[in-house]
Amino acid sequence: MKPVYFFDEGHGQSRRLLGGKGAGLCEMTSLGLPVPPGFVVTTAVCKDYYRNGRTISDKVMRAVRRNVSRIARETGKKWKSARNPLLVSVRSGAAISMPGMMDTILNLGLNDDTVLGLAEQSGNPRFAWDSYRRFVQLFGKVVFGVDDSTFDDILDAAKERQGVTGDAELSEDSLRDVVSQYKEACRRHAGRDFPEDPDEQLELAVKAVFASWMGERAVVYREKNRITPDIADGTAVNVVSMVFGNMGEDSATGVIFTRDPGDGSRRLFGDYLVNAQGEDVVAGTRTPKPVARMVRELPEAYDTLEKTCSTLEKHFREPQDIEFTLEQGRFYLLQTRSAKMNASAMIRTSVEMVSEGLIDRKRAVSRLSAEQLEQLLHPSIDAKASKDHDTLARGIAASPGAASGRVVFDVREAVELGEAGESVILVREETKPEDVPAFFASVGILTSRGGKTSHAAVVARGMGKPCIVGCAQLRIDADAGTCTAGDRVVRSGEHVTIDGATGIVYLGTVPTVRPRMTKNFQTILEWARKGKRLGIRANADTPEAARLARKYGAEGIGLCRTERMFNAEDRIGLFVRMIMARDGAERRARLAELQRLQRSDFAKILKAMEGYPVTIRLLDPPLHEFLPNPEELAGRIAQMPGDEAAAQKPVLARARELAEVNPMMGHRGVRVGVTYPEIYEMQIRAVFEAAASLARRGVRAVPQIMVPQVGSVEELDHIKRIYDDIRSEAERKNGRPVPVSFGTMIEVVRAAVTADRLASTAEFFSFGTNDLTQATYSFSREDAEGKFLPEYMEKGLLARNPFQTLDADGVGELMALAISKGRDARPGMEVGICGEHGGDPDSVRFCHAAGVDYVSASPHRIPIATVAAAQAAASGN
Amino acid sequence: MKPVYFFDEGHGQSRRLLGGKGAGLCEMTSLGLPVPPGFVVTTAVCKDYYRNGRTISDKVMRAVRRNVSRIARETGKKWKSARNPLLVSVRSGAAISMPGMMDTILNLGLNDDTVLGLAEQSGNPRFAWDSYRRFVQLFGKVVFGVDDSTFDDILDAAKERQGVTGDAELSEDSLRDVVSQYKEACRRHAGRDFPEDPDEQLELAVKAVFASWMGERAVVYREKNRITPDIADGTAVNVVSMVFGNMGEDSATGVIFTRDPGDGSRRLFGDYLVNAQGEDVVAGTRTPKPVARMVRELPEAYDTLEKTCSTLEKHFREPQDIEFTLEQGRFYLLQTRSAKMNASAMIRTSVEMVSEGLIDRKRAVSRLSAEQLEQLLHPSIDAKASKDHDTLARGIAASPGAASGRVVFDVREAVELGEAGESVILVREETKPEDVPAFFASVGILTSRGGKTSHAAVVARGMGKPCIVGCAQLRIDADAGTCTAGDRVVRSGEHVTIDGATGIVYLGTVPTVRPRMTKNFQTILEWARKGKRLGIRANADTPEAARLARKYGAEGIGLCRTERMFNAEDRIGLFVRMIMARDGAERRARLAELQRLQRSDFAKILKAMEGYPVTIRLLDPPLHEFLPNPEELAGRIAQMPGDEAAAQKPVLARARELAEVNPMMGHRGVRVGVTYPEIYEMQIRAVFEAAASLARRGVRAVPQIMVPQVGSVEELDHIKRIYDDIRSEAERKNGRPVPVSFGTMIEVVRAAVTADRLASTAEFFSFGTNDLTQATYSFSREDAEGKFLPEYMEKGLLARNPFQTLDADGVGELMALAISKGRDARPGMEVGICGEHGGDPDSVRFCHAAGVDYVSASPHRIPIATVAAAQAAASGN
Repeated sequence: MKPVYFFDEGHGQSRRLLGGKGAGLCEMTSLGLPVPPGFVVTTAVCKDYYRNGRTISDKVMRAVRRNVSRIARETGKKWKSARNPLLVSVRSGAAISMPGMMDTILNLGLNDDTVLGLAEQSGNPRFAWDSYRRFVQLFGKVVFGVDDSTFDDILDAAKERQGVTGDAELSEDSLRDVVSQYKEACRRHAGRDFPEDPDEQLELAVKAVFASWMGERAVVYREKNRITPDIADGTAVNVVSMVFGNMGEDSATGVIFTRDPGDGSRRLFGDYLVNAQGEDVVAGTRTPKPVARMVRELPEAYDTLEKTCSTLEKHFREPQDIEFTLEQGRFYLLQTRSAKMNASAMIRTSVEMVSEGLIDRKRAVSRLSAEQLEQLLHPSIDAKASKDHDTLARGIAASPGAASGRVVFDVREAVELGEAGESVILVREETKPEDVPAFFASVGILTSRGGKTSHAAVVARGMGKPCIVGCAQLRIDADAGTCTAGDRVVRSGEHVTIDGATGIVYLGTVPTVRPRMTKNFQTILEWARKGKRLGIRANADTPEAARLARKYGAEGIGLCRTERMFNAEDRIGLFVRMIMARDGAERRARLAELQRLQRSDFAKILKAMEGYPVTIRLLDPPLHEFLPNPEELAGRIAQMPGDEAAAQKPVLARARELAEVNPMMGHRGVRVGVTYPEIYEMQIRAVFEAAASLARRGVRAVPQIMVPQVGSVEELDHIKRIYDDIRSEAERKNGRPVPVSFGTMIEVVRAAVTADRLASTAEFFSFGTNDLTQATYSFSREDAEGKFLPEYMEKGLLARNPFQTLDADGVGELMALAISKGRDARPGMEVGICGEHGGDPDSVRFCHAAGVDYVSASPHRIPIATVAAAQAAASGN
Repeated sequence: MKPVYFFDEGHGQSRRLLGGKGAGLCEMTSLGLPVPPGFVVTTAVCKDYYRNGRTISDKVMRAVRRNVSRIARETGKKWKSARNPLLVSVRSGAAISMPGMMDTILNLGLNDDTVLGLAEQSGNPRFAWDSYRRFVQLFGKVVFGVDDSTFDDILDAAKERQGVTGDAELSEDSLRDVVSQYKEACRRHAGRDFPEDPDEQLELAVKAVFASWMGERAVVYREKNRITPDIADGTAVNVVSMVFGNMGEDSATGVIFTRDPGDGSRRLFGDYLVNAQGEDVVAGTRTPKPVARMVRELPEAYDTLEKTCSTLEKHFREPQDIEFTLEQGRFYLLQTRSAKMNASAMIRTSVEMVSEGLIDRKRAVSRLSAEQLEQLLHPSIDAKASKDHDTLARGIAASPGAASGRVVFDVREAVELGEAGESVILVREETKPEDVPAFFASVGILTSRGGKTSHAAVVARGMGKPCIVGCAQLRIDADAGTCTAGDRVVRSGEHVTIDGATGIVYLGTVPTVRPRMTKNFQTILEWARKGKRLGIRANADTPEAARLARKYGAEGIGLCRTERMFNAEDRIGLFVRMIMARDGAERRARLAELQRLQRSDFAKILKAMEGYPVTIRLLDPPLHEFLPNPEELAGRIAQMPGDEAAAQKPVLARARELAEVNPMMGHRGVRVGVTYPEIYEMQIRAVFEAAASLARRGVRAVPQIMVPQVGSVEELDHIKRIYDDIRSEAERKNGRPVPVSFGTMIEVVRAAVTADRLASTAEFFSFGTNDLTQATYSFSREDAEGKFLPEYMEKGLLARNPFQTLDADGVGELMALAISKGRDARPGMEVGICGEHGGDPDSVRFCHAAGVDYVSASPHRIPIATVAAAQAAASGN
């Protein structure tokens, strides 16, 4: 394997081998753009470095030196020369960008000889010695681990001695002295002399960059951001000839986006500094100017910049984020990469690049991150208003959405205030299972520890609440009732606002904006709809939700949960009386009343979805879910007056009788349908009556009846006989066929395994992936997410929460088995999934690949599902 | 298809086509034994009869008449002849015997002409007219549905008129008169004349027998005994020339077993009656004599009988149950079938027939019913003592074992008495889920309704308690506190004894005998052990259980549940303190104490099983199972003195913190092992230390460590790393390898689906079929068996309780998948099952076929598993 690539030898696609930065530099070089000559030491060398006990082979170092010679040839400078010295920068660059996490050394090649050459060459000895000083400091810090404060003390003493306050005022002599003291500091710290030989400097620098890959900061960063070895397994090293933006008023340095990353508009965006190096921009000692100012100040350079940006965009077909340096009027590109933008900017650029002819619609959809689109579907910080609010701290964005509320440190207090109607932001060092009640009571969660898979992050995402974790700047003192970041102190009860999309914590209450659907987003969705194969349906239980789903583009309802209708306030009493019925006759009487209500509900929903299928699931939960909790009721009865208590006692007895050890696997779904057939009879009849009455009014209703919790064809056949009887009865009454179909959920493992038999009766399948996941893992979601799941994810036993992203290896394998068996028995059978996975991009991609016909998601996630479906279609078959 | 088989045309193997009785008659005919000439109308004709709207085709009836002619030829009698008439019997006979459930007509062919021929032929006109009377009555009843009481009234009037009291005293004239009145009664009832033409009589009789297949009694019988259409789907009709055991003192009839069905001893057993017909034996009007008396009374016939029995046994290689008739000195066989015997008689005959050279050992084992052997493993009625006790009633034997106790009708009273230490027999019309607490409190259950799959039957079998259901003779009046059978009344609180193996309810307390292992049973087990392929291991958690298991022949322990050791009285306190530990350090301290105890337990068990594998399962249940129930504890705390209450409050808080919604799918097994690694560390260390110390003492211990609830290879690898560390540590200390292996339970569905990956880490698999069944069906066993499972079985949605007999289609399919994936990844890997299915014969057969290496069962079921394993080996591959 070739260990070193000169920039004209590498390829922009080889990010794994060359790292992101190296690949970009190679690609720009091959485009003929003005990149300073340089080369990449590959990530493969980095892996060898660790494999061989942190060493680099002689062969590789020879290759490095050969490439240094080539830089010298191309720049016309000389390595180690005291007259015309070649200086280089050494920078890390992994396949995935890890901003600020690894190390950079500038001006490498300087020593007591070459510094004279630089002085002569630049005609600016002060500049040369200042460069030398900076080099020794960076090198000493990165290679030898000398603390910054050691250098700062030396510099401060020099300034005092000379009687000046700014670095820039230090004289050449002072700087010489500082360099010598810096070197002495290094010697004391490292127990060896500062290396004068540029070859040795380079070898030590390359090793230090490799070592920084396993530095504590970098390891933590990768863990928190789930950058696993299959994504990036080492860093490359970029060695580039130095160019200087600080060689006078015709020199400058800048960081530019080819389009505005805030709103996506087509204009250069960014800042530059005249007579400065990149460091100065970062250090914030001088205020950079907006790029628009270049038009007047450096008109030629601006021209070049504009043309370069246009070339890069045309080549990469993506907005770019670039670094440039102007050295005495000469323009150099030091980096390019795809610009990171917020979701709405991504959407705008997608739409505009299509109209500019830069990309086609397929690419316009594919370049979006479906996960990122979620930002647009939660409340977000009002960007204008946020400027008026101070930032308290910044942590890891763990669950999107923005929320404001009072800071509360105590779990019990959070529950009390939350239940009293206050908006509460729960602030903890970290959270534990026993804190979960406070999650329910809070509008957002903020922790100072933990990463994206910490307990707080997993639970908050499960609940859809905004959450920031790992906000390390924040020091929480719960006893004192304060949290502190820098010199800002927030007391318990004061207001903060958290932005779970960016990880920023604001002081005070920042106004938020409700999500809205922009015209550009509509356009993207339209393109996505045309490009996808998967159908997208909605989970909706009310006519209002059905209408909303249509607005978002749902092509039907994949899951209409009939029990939600029973839980409505005007019905729950009726439903309870049905459960309490002493015999079948009384139960039927109560059901007759419920039937009228359900028929009307169904008719409204079917009408709202006219022309599209509506999959109605028969009663799923166990009956005791509709009754009060026995212990609570017993407590209340103890305090009731005698006659009231007497009236409640039968309810208590029934609740106790129906109680279960494991309700998730108990008397529910089709099992209730079998033992209380009158309930399913009522529901099926209500569907037929609704469909028949709509048909008479000329409304094209397409209801599908779906039986939950089926595990055997015997159960399904049993319900099918009831269905057939009601169908015959309805058709007799109606005088013509009523268009209702009959299918089954596949959510019990045994249903998946015996799908061929089920398909002989079922006209369609719908996977209930939530229950199927629970059964496949033997995880009760309620128990797992609060208890062991976060620890599983932190320990790496689970890469993803399987209740959010479908487990392809286990659950997916069963789905594939069921689909294949089902379609063998009933060719072309319709297969869908309903449940939360339907709105998760990776799960949507899995469903596309598995040959599922449609996914059903909650209405507000339909856009995400639509985009994910289009991306899946674009990327494969 | 040939619709009618003359007895020399049929084949003894064709039971499905000819029915059991017909096949036996054909077989005996082909052996040259004296069977009266006759023929079989096949079950296929019966199916056509139903298919064609209860008609029989002309073609079939022509075949019937041709065969009647052949009977006439062979007997030398004439059909419809007034001089020498041929008379026949018409009897049902299905593939499965349904005693007393279908109909029989004797003396068919008699009419006003032929009766004269019979009179002349027999020289006994009274006999002829009495036969005619009986024929008309049976025919009238079976074909026209005339009530017996109508005939009885006529007969009583005739006797009164003649002034006699017994039937036998009626004169020929009186009988003539009775016949004529009987016919008139039939005419009135049927609206048509009694058929005089024997052809018409025969056609009507055959149809009536077919019709009786769907008679209410027969349908109910089949339902209760689970005789499904795949076992028997119609009845055959046997038409046989009549022979008469009531033609004088040289005539007789009898029912004989070739060996004693009570103890299996080799002697003829049964009764006979001189000058009588079969009916007389059944009617009980005369007392039959034991067969031994025949030696003196009818020595020649006895000789023939003995030789015939010997011939039949040699032919069928099974003890037979035969009917014979002696007609004026001539010996006829009317039926033969395999004798039904109790379990110990079956075993004795198996052993003796081998020593007699009648059968080989393989057949000796195969002919036993493994299910029936269960009788020998429960307490049973002391046969000698039972003779001194009256039988109250007889119902359906639903769950084996015998028990005596006070009759209690009220559920609450049963619970109270049971908890007070009384032996209670719960007596109900039927049981419901809310009665389950009374099941726990009772020693046996008796119901007057329901079949083998009723709620009572399913729940009692699940608990291993004796149970009789469907005891229809019993009229229960719970309000009056009595139950009545015939004229016997039993009051609440009086003692009864139920025998769940036979369905007999005795009055009073009948002594029972503890199960014991006879020498014959030992012999059979020895043969079974040699013939089987499957290994048989035991589920055992104590050294005592291990020794018992060895005695029963266990070849290892397949499941040693370590948590049972924690539940012992001297340890539970320690375990609770471990759970209550404030931090890892305190927890480790508690665990160190537990480790000493576990090491000693393990050492004792391993020693008891020396040379055989012992599979030790790491902690499985959730931690809250070891703490008190929070609601109960809260109640107790409310009544405690202040300081005691204060001490208990942390326990309450911890119990609440650990409580789960669905504990079955919650924080248990490997999930506890991951989150509290110190617990598994302790257990694994205890195993290594026990094994190492035994090895030092020269004891060959073979421990296998098994991780429960594993769903992914990541979990297993996580525990494996802990195991590897402890193994290295132990081997360092011990100075040599310690023979411990590492495997996984397959009880989570995802484990089965990803078995190939698990097999890369696990050295063996053990299926936890109970949990796997729960997860595959999404049935919580605790909830299902008490609630909907019985109704599922009554409605035919489940043929068997999947927690007793492995569900081959669902759970078995997953097992097959796991075995195949597992062995692909690790060829020849050991695969076992542990759990209750290991003791169920059908499940053992499934495991044999699926290529499982061993089953593990509770010690007392090892003999059953051994026999079932040998039968599986004998029947297949």
